[in-house]
Amino acid sequence: MLGICLDNVRKTVPLVHNITNYVTVNDVANILLACGGSPIMSDEPEDVEDITSICGGLNINIGTLNQRSIQGMHRAGKKAAQLHHVLLLDPVGAGASALRTNTAVDLMEQLPFTVIRGNISEIKTLALGSGKTRGVDADVSDAVSDENLDSAVAFVKDFAQRSHAIVAVTGAIDLVSDGQRCFVIRNGRPEMGKITGTGCQLSGMMTAFVVANPDRRLEAAAAAVCAMGLAGETGWSRMAPGDGNSTYRNRIIDAIYNMDGAALDKGAKYEVR
Amino acid sequence: MLGICLDNVRKTVPLVHNITNYVTVNDVANILLACGGSPIMSDEPEDVEDITSICGGLNINIGTLNQRSIQGMHRAGKKAAQLHHVLLLDPVGAGASALRTNTAVDLMEQLPFTVIRGNISEIKTLALGSGKTRGVDADVSDAVSDENLDSAVAFVKDFAQRSHAIVAVTGAIDLVSDGQRCFVIRNGRPEMGKITGTGCQLSGMMTAFVVANPDRRLEAAAAAVCAMGLAGETGWSRMAPGDGNSTYRNRIIDAIYNMDGAALDKGAKYEVR
Amino acid sequence: MLGICLDNVRKTVPLVHNITNYVTVNDVANILLACGGSPIMSDEPEDVEDITSICGGLNINIGTLNQRSIQGMHRAGKKAAQLHHVLLLDPVGAGASALRTNTAVDLMEQLPFTVIRGNISEIKTLALGSGKTRGVDADVSDAVSDENLDSAVAFVKDFAQRSHAIVAVTGAIDLVSDGQRCFVIRNGRPEMGKITGTGCQLSGMMTAFVVANPDRRLEAAAAAVCAMGLAGETGWSRMAPGDGNSTYRNRIIDAIYNMDGAALDKGAKYEVR
Repeated sequence: MLGICLDNVRKTVPLVHNITNYVTVNDVANILLACGGSPIMSDEPEDVEDITSICGGLNINIGTLNQRSIQGMHRAGKKAAQLHHVLLLDPVGAGASALRTNTAVDLMEQLPFTVIRGNISEIKTLALGSGKTRGVDADVSDAVSDENLDSAVAFVKDFAQRSHAIVAVTGAIDLVSDGQRCFVIRNGRPEMGKITGTGCQLSGMMTAFVVANPDRRLEAAAAAVCAMGLAGETGWSRMAPGDGNSTYRNRIIDAIYNMDGAALDKGAKYEVR
Repeated sequence: MLGICLDNVRKTVPLVHNITNYVTVNDVANILLACGGSPIMSDEPEDVEDITSICGGLNINIGTLNQRSIQGMHRAGKKAAQLHHVLLLDPVGAGASALRTNTAVDLMEQLPFTVIRGNISEIKTLALGSGKTRGVDADVSDAVSDENLDSAVAFVKDFAQRSHAIVAVTGAIDLVSDGQRCFVIRNGRPEMGKITGTGCQLSGMMTAFVVANPDRRLEAAAAAVCAMGLAGETGWSRMAPGDGNSTYRNRIIDAIYNMDGAALDKGAKYEVR
Repeated sequence: MLGICLDNVRKTVPLVHNITNYVTVNDVANILLACGGSPIMSDEPEDVEDITSICGGLNINIGTLNQRSIQGMHRAGKKAAQLHHVLLLDPVGAGASALRTNTAVDLMEQLPFTVIRGNISEIKTLALGSGKTRGVDADVSDAVSDENLDSAVAFVKDFAQRSHAIVAVTGAIDLVSDGQRCFVIRNGRPEMGKITGTGCQLSGMMTAFVVANPDRRLEAAAAAVCAMGLAGETGWSRMAPGDGNSTYRNRIIDAIYNMDGAALDKGAKYEVR
């Protein structure tokens, strides 16, 4: 069921416009190519409207935002919304600075995001208007676990309803909800947290998945989460003694490159609540 | 014949100033080091004149242009031209937005480029004043093939004459012409298109090749194209089951690192028309 | 003795704010994660004060400086100084342009740096007010060698005293001094110079080491230098035929990921003068 979402990316080669941080942008581009999409990057306000017009989706990531790129996010977002494109927000570091929190909140208020994807701290910041983000990594005390799963699912469903978006909270257990249903996903490995940008990569890839599956957007977002986690598992199984996080980064992108819908269906670990 | 062009890079260690996009800049730096050159990056208008003065060549790539870096391109280009440095233009995404098209055309009108390198859509945009660029990748319908090779060679020769530059159009078949002769090159693999930035890498490396070979610039530009394609072949031969585009990226740069002139002469596949 | 400095990084997971160049930023983030630290990147003047406040150290690298990021460096630096955070300066390319030299000198005059790390050309530029930097790589004629070791050690001690900072000069032989003692370090391999950004990576990692070891800052800075060099040795030992600088980059970060204090103690090659 989720596998077809990946197959549709490879069939339709969705072009994704990324306004993303300069830390992980190369990996975002390569994982988009790996999954069958096509990336284009542009953040200059005078450039973004034309660029987003030829794309199917827009991935806005505020990881290394600046005053110029914030303008670019708004102009690109307005144009993408006019064209009914898929719009994804990755609020990197929301809660860690006033500028990041305010920028993410402003974007949410002014743009009809299709998907909002972040860690639990970032999403709580957006949902509750506050947060205790420790840097850009999730505060461990907030982590979704089997102990707090019921309340976490309720929180994500509620925020999805209020924001009129699919909300994806990623961590040891991932939650993806459109407000009605919630995918609870258990793919992935803890070592993925030792690589910079697995979240950014997922946001880019998720945009492509949702563009390629207009009739099943929730499943597409969940499929991207399962694919990323499964790639983390497959990539880890190929690690040799002495390998570390830099090689692991390559192995994960390689695993996406070699994944097809059947493998995703077989490896995806989720339940729907 | 082409191999000596690579040997000259390793002998003279040309310093190349790159104003290039933040997506693929790390790979551009590493491939420049791999081929024997030395990279330096600077795009701030107040910095670029000093930096370009100590270099032998300037590689301008408009992949993630912004208003500030466009100023940097013009100031660096004027200084480099005064000093008779090698000047290369990589018009990434020309045709995909008005800003990109206009910036590339402005740069061409104001600077005496030694080389212009792009895919067929980008080069047609510059040559014909129009284009149907689909994102930053070449439109398949425009691809140079055995069927349209004669007209493609004639087009590239004509544009080289009119622009007073060496023109390199890269794709499944690569064409490199100074307006008189045209190298038709058949190195490379289609999987290279699944890595972000092989074109950007080639532009950086080509700048070093042309700087290191002032008496045979056309051969040097063609040698860089052959070297990149041959590295794509060598790199692919070292791929293991489960490897994908991220590992392939590393393998290609590694192959350049280990290539010498004799290997390039042996592996280069071209004819001159 | 140095090994405990690495163990302390893994125990305390120091959060490091990096204002660094876009060429090597991804590798800086991954090596910080590899050694047990946590990276965050932000260069927007309106963002940096909040971000640096939640961190333990600030790594300022001027590799692709621009007018906006220079403002960010000063604002972040002032806030970090108020909070008595660890402050590191990596003056990439000082001596290669007036803007870089002036920016590095301005930063030194206005901020109480804990550590200044660069190659011999850059450090001489700062110390002597002049330099013959060839691009961003060290001028070979300046290289620290067994022949000029006594005078080089005296120079580094003197500059450390005058700048009230730990000074780290890296090259074939590395020198790290607080003005009283000088670590003379002989780890590493010459092939590390064929990878872009090993110096930038070291600066990021060194910031984490010094943050995690407030009572032995000199030892911590020296430990970071030894760890980087040892990783270069370990990484090289894992290279296969056909591997080159791109794979070597991964192997070095991987080696940091797998290094513990005992291995560092065993592999560190240094004397104290």
